[in-house]
Amino acid sequence: MTRTVLESKTKTVTIGFDEPFCVIGERINPTGRKKLAAELEMDDFSTVEKDAIEQVACGAMVLDINSGAVFTNKMASDPRYADNNFVEPMLMPELVKRVQALVDVPLCIDSSVPGALEAGLEAAEGRPLLNSVTGEEERLEIVLPLVKKYNVPVVAISNDDTGISEDPDVRFAVAKKIVERAADFGIPAHDIVVDPLVMPIGAMATAGQQVFTLVRRLRDELGVNTTCGASNVSFGLPHRHGINAAFLPMAIGAGMTSAIMNPVRQVEMEAIKAANMLMNHDPNGSAWIGFSRVIDAVAEGATFAEASKAAMEAGSGRGGRRRRR
Amino acid sequence: MTRTVLESKTKTVTIGFDEPFCVIGERINPTGRKKLAAELEMDDFSTVEKDAIEQVACGAMVLDINSGAVFTNKMASDPRYADNNFVEPMLMPELVKRVQALVDVPLCIDSSVPGALEAGLEAAEGRPLLNSVTGEEERLEIVLPLVKKYNVPVVAISNDDTGISEDPDVRFAVAKKIVERAADFGIPAHDIVVDPLVMPIGAMATAGQQVFTLVRRLRDELGVNTTCGASNVSFGLPHRHGINAAFLPMAIGAGMTSAIMNPVRQVEMEAIKAANMLMNHDPNGSAWIGFSRVIDAVAEGATFAEASKAAMEAGSGRGGRRRRR
Repeated sequence: MTRTVLESKTKTVTIGFDEPFCVIGERINPTGRKKLAAELEMDDFSTVEKDAIEQVACGAMVLDINSGAVFTNKMASDPRYADNNFVEPMLMPELVKRVQALVDVPLCIDSSVPGALEAGLEAAEGRPLLNSVTGEEERLEIVLPLVKKYNVPVVAISNDDTGISEDPDVRFAVAKKIVERAADFGIPAHDIVVDPLVMPIGAMATAGQQVFTLVRRLRDELGVNTTCGASNVSFGLPHRHGINAAFLPMAIGAGMTSAIMNPVRQVEMEAIKAANMLMNHDPNGSAWIGFSRVIDAVAEGATFAEASKAAMEAGSGRGGRRRRR
Repeated sequence: MTRTVLESKTKTVTIGFDEPFCVIGERINPTGRKKLAAELEMDDFSTVEKDAIEQVACGAMVLDINSGAVFTNKMASDPRYADNNFVEPMLMPELVKRVQALVDVPLCIDSSVPGALEAGLEAAEGRPLLNSVTGEEERLEIVLPLVKKYNVPVVAISNDDTGISEDPDVRFAVAKKIVERAADFGIPAHDIVVDPLVMPIGAMATAGQQVFTLVRRLRDELGVNTTCGASNVSFGLPHRHGINAAFLPMAIGAGMTSAIMNPVRQVEMEAIKAANMLMNHDPNGSAWIGFSRVIDAVAEGATFAEASKAAMEAGSGRGGRRRRR
């Protein structure tokens, strides 16, 4: 049975076929969040800290930490800041330390800069997930040794030096190549979490079916866990959250075991909690019943984040009923 | 390719693996609706007519017509009314005629009384769906000859003389027996729509997985279309519609091709429209984009039924953009 084990200082989260779907919170990511990047440039971590607490309250079991900030002002006075190989290895450990001082969930160390990946691995307590390796030769040769050295699981994105193929068979072949190459480094398949790449259905009508088929094959033929950037599927469409909230249960039914996503969205989280119960991954429905109290509080006027935080605090006050394993 | 073809006076609806999910509206059913039964007893068909129009506006592609009324007052003065074999064969054709005078969608003739099934088949225009046969010997011998005589498709419910088995392999075997018995009558498998029976997950934690597995087997091994009473799955749980809205996309992903359900519920219909697009059964996303305008109208204060009716009327005014095939 494929089990990808992640750890924080004291908690263990297992990604697996017989586990509740693993929600990896995506919000701590300055790429495309200019306001957050500007805050980080001024050593202001208040948004990061708020995002960490909110995401965990809303149901994130792992937090992605992406260090891809562009420091425009510092760049003007010091040209070294124009290079992310300079910025990110400094920023990543700072983000990791701030977040793990506040919340006790495993982290996902996310950067395209090898120095930032290693700095994040050094700073992280427990057993974080590394994000990511691809099928590109250069990335394989840089990232897999880190995976081996730190004995951590890794997200494997199924593109290679030829780019992202629209042919799902090619994306499967790339995933297979990464798993095989990892094996050469002594890294087991259960430590590879494959992202089969979700295309927008607005641009490619077969994109949903491709993912469902790929996830089944990755599970049956390679025995690996899977993840995705779930919201990609609805890019460009109206009422995206409705599409996402159908996509997630369908992907879970096909065998997808985790997603990197925004957990501060009720509709998607509701779909996941319901799918967990329908997959028999919610013994006695206790998680669904707890979540339904949050829905009630939202109906009475609270935001989803407020209601989730209140439920978490009430839960820990009552002997940790909502405590994670 | 398995295609179950239903017809109204002028419209064709195909249930099939490559078709949008077929929503069969369940509301015209006096069983458990005392107010509706009382109205029918007084020859008042206003609720039936409202339900017919609303369900079609909200997206029902087929309407179930159940004649299982209990006429309490008439029973008191005329003991023959205590027998549904007396009541339903009179009521069914009246319901069928009223509904098909108002809406041009195929019907699903639904009764446990053989005389009502035959009276409904006589009254219905086009090619209705018959609901239902089971694996019980007596039902097989009564219903299959009707299916053959009228050349209509039939819903096959996977229980038999021993009742409803909790073992999905037994339910599969019952479905197989019905398909084989139908073949003896010259009825092809594509005219059998199997209901694998959905149990409540609150009572049986494996019920969701059972259905997904059964649907795949029914499709792969017997080549039949499938249906279910979708809302059963959430019986007894809080926020049932959240469970239903995850169950339907998961069932569709597993290969389920229709459901008997309440289409006047936005959350379930939204899940189905999104799942259709994710299955590549919504060319260019035009159904989703049309539906998203209904969601917008609901956000502005309309009920889902009102917004759906307005969209349907606007659509037919613009050259039948929303007209069914």
